[in-house]
Amino acid sequence: MNNSLKWLDESVKIINSKFTQKAQEHQNNLTKPPGSLGELENIAIKFSAWQESDRPNLEKIQIYIFAADHGIARENVSAFPQAVTAEMVRNFAASGAAIAVLAKFSAIPLKVLNMGTVSAIEALPSVEDCRLGAGTESFLTAQAMNSEQLTAALEKGKQQAELAKNQNIQLIIAGEMGIANTTSAAAIAAALFNLSAADIAGKGTGLDQQGLLHKIQIIDKALEFHQNSEASTLNILQTFGGFEIAAMTGCYVRAAQLGIPILVDGFISTVAAALAIKINPKVQQWMLFAHRSAEQGHQLLLELIQAEPLMSLNLRLGEGSAAALVVPILRSACAIHNQMATFEQAKVSKA
Amino acid sequence: MNNSLKWLDESVKIINSKFTQKAQEHQNNLTKPPGSLGELENIAIKFSAWQESDRPNLEKIQIYIFAADHGIARENVSAFPQAVTAEMVRNFAASGAAIAVLAKFSAIPLKVLNMGTVSAIEALPSVEDCRLGAGTESFLTAQAMNSEQLTAALEKGKQQAELAKNQNIQLIIAGEMGIANTTSAAAIAAALFNLSAADIAGKGTGLDQQGLLHKIQIIDKALEFHQNSEASTLNILQTFGGFEIAAMTGCYVRAAQLGIPILVDGFISTVAAALAIKINPKVQQWMLFAHRSAEQGHQLLLELIQAEPLMSLNLRLGEGSAAALVVPILRSACAIHNQMATFEQAKVSKA
Repeated sequence: MNNSLKWLDESVKIINSKFTQKAQEHQNNLTKPPGSLGELENIAIKFSAWQESDRPNLEKIQIYIFAADHGIARENVSAFPQAVTAEMVRNFAASGAAIAVLAKFSAIPLKVLNMGTVSAIEALPSVEDCRLGAGTESFLTAQAMNSEQLTAALEKGKQQAELAKNQNIQLIIAGEMGIANTTSAAAIAAALFNLSAADIAGKGTGLDQQGLLHKIQIIDKALEFHQNSEASTLNILQTFGGFEIAAMTGCYVRAAQLGIPILVDGFISTVAAALAIKINPKVQQWMLFAHRSAEQGHQLLLELIQAEPLMSLNLRLGEGSAAALVVPILRSACAIHNQMATFEQAKVSKA
Repeated sequence: MNNSLKWLDESVKIINSKFTQKAQEHQNNLTKPPGSLGELENIAIKFSAWQESDRPNLEKIQIYIFAADHGIARENVSAFPQAVTAEMVRNFAASGAAIAVLAKFSAIPLKVLNMGTVSAIEALPSVEDCRLGAGTESFLTAQAMNSEQLTAALEKGKQQAELAKNQNIQLIIAGEMGIANTTSAAAIAAALFNLSAADIAGKGTGLDQQGLLHKIQIIDKALEFHQNSEASTLNILQTFGGFEIAAMTGCYVRAAQLGIPILVDGFISTVAAALAIKINPKVQQWMLFAHRSAEQGHQLLLELIQAEPLMSLNLRLGEGSAAALVVPILRSACAIHNQMATFEQAKVSKA
């Protein structure tokens, strides 16, 4: 590993289990049957420990959307044309996209990082231009990224986590946009977990059955072309690429190192999460998983990393949309923890 | 059926399918792959049709909590003492209960109806005293309610829906509180659907395995005592009772007749929903189901009425808590419908 990537191995912040225990005791004293608020109790306990606070809150959340184009899009693996990546960056900036509406609903700031659209994009509000190239190379016949691009993409994600730390952000959501990025993500997952493309690839933005079969063939061909059973996690990421996937991976690793909880979105985010966990396993201690996507393969991927998502509403949009949707549930869990009366306060009899 | 219950059979408001179709078309024009927002799309489309509006919103929601005591509590079927029903009414009024915190979180007004605690309760803010008795009779040896009580309880629920209509309420949540009411609800469900108690009864507020077996025996004994294969839905409700369950049933039926959507909470709410649907099947057209409770039996009950809940977070508190928790998701669905850009507006290419 080159020196500029050594940071990936730095220790993840240790979670203070005293707060876990205190928060659990507090939950048992609240005026409800113990355990009757299920996952809400677990969420509040986790944030109490993450924040080392008896009164966890989620006032300060940040959404980063990493956008990039993929060379593999040339192989006709998406239902949408490649131009949509840049068009959607403009739509994020203009607040017309689903994630923008959800971010506004929950009063969460949204920042877009253009990691590499095919063409440059004019200056836009809340969009940072950090293009590492005109999209990646097609991984059907080449490595998607060179090592400088890999390093730079990971670093850009790392920087966002550091920025978040400076701003006292209490939860990071990393979303993504990139035509053909479910193909990239499926290839990464297949290589990481020794799967065939058919196990993990899905219809993405809306391929028909024939389109899906073609996508599977492309991925299998690429897996064969790059076959290397000794490939490291970083090799796999560089090979099947996605500037945005690399940036998310770097962001997740650094967030956990700095002790910022992470809310993982859908299929592509979970592939980035899996990469981060393979690189530095304790990163997962700082993660919550928002939902089980309708994208075929997400369920398997969640099982492979033993992640239990909060919801399952048949979403398959990406952009961080399901994560943003879940935020009020996390905030409700904190509100309950902080505002409910105890049995003693309310003079309610115990079981 | 006596005259004072004839209203139960009145027609449910017809849903305007023109709005369903227009809303579906609008969803397909928004800047996302068609269908990629899953249940959020369905929710927005439903509210568009329910409200006969191209821009559905959920600004005005009302929570009613119906509280009552149960004679069957004498049989030791709950982990908590009967005094807790009244104590929790005070806790609702003092904003210390989970539902009070969640209602505040989403800015939803909360009204408590004391349908019959064992002892009268002093005047409290936002609590209406409408006690129909000092709890119900124990259905182990008698009918839980007499016919006047049944009529009055249904009527009280009906009145709340009518009040809501006058206040332009756009969604009703009916919650409940009543020690031993999972026993009452399980007996009702067993009688309605020809189940044995073991199929449907669960641990409620937290019985141990022995406590659950005892609860099942009590319910089976009661089912045998009252055995009447020709019992009408209203007979079953009167027999196994619950003033609060009858009030919820009346509230649901009237809400659907008046065209107010209903968000059903957990096990007990779903039993009231099942009663309402048995009485007047089209009531279900106005219902959404918030969650799959951890209470054993809820899953089966949902399947029996072919209801698909939105979430599954292992909650089992009642009070309307899971329904209140889901409200931001419903509001998000409407926000997306109203605020997202179309492909044309955002100049995004289509598939």
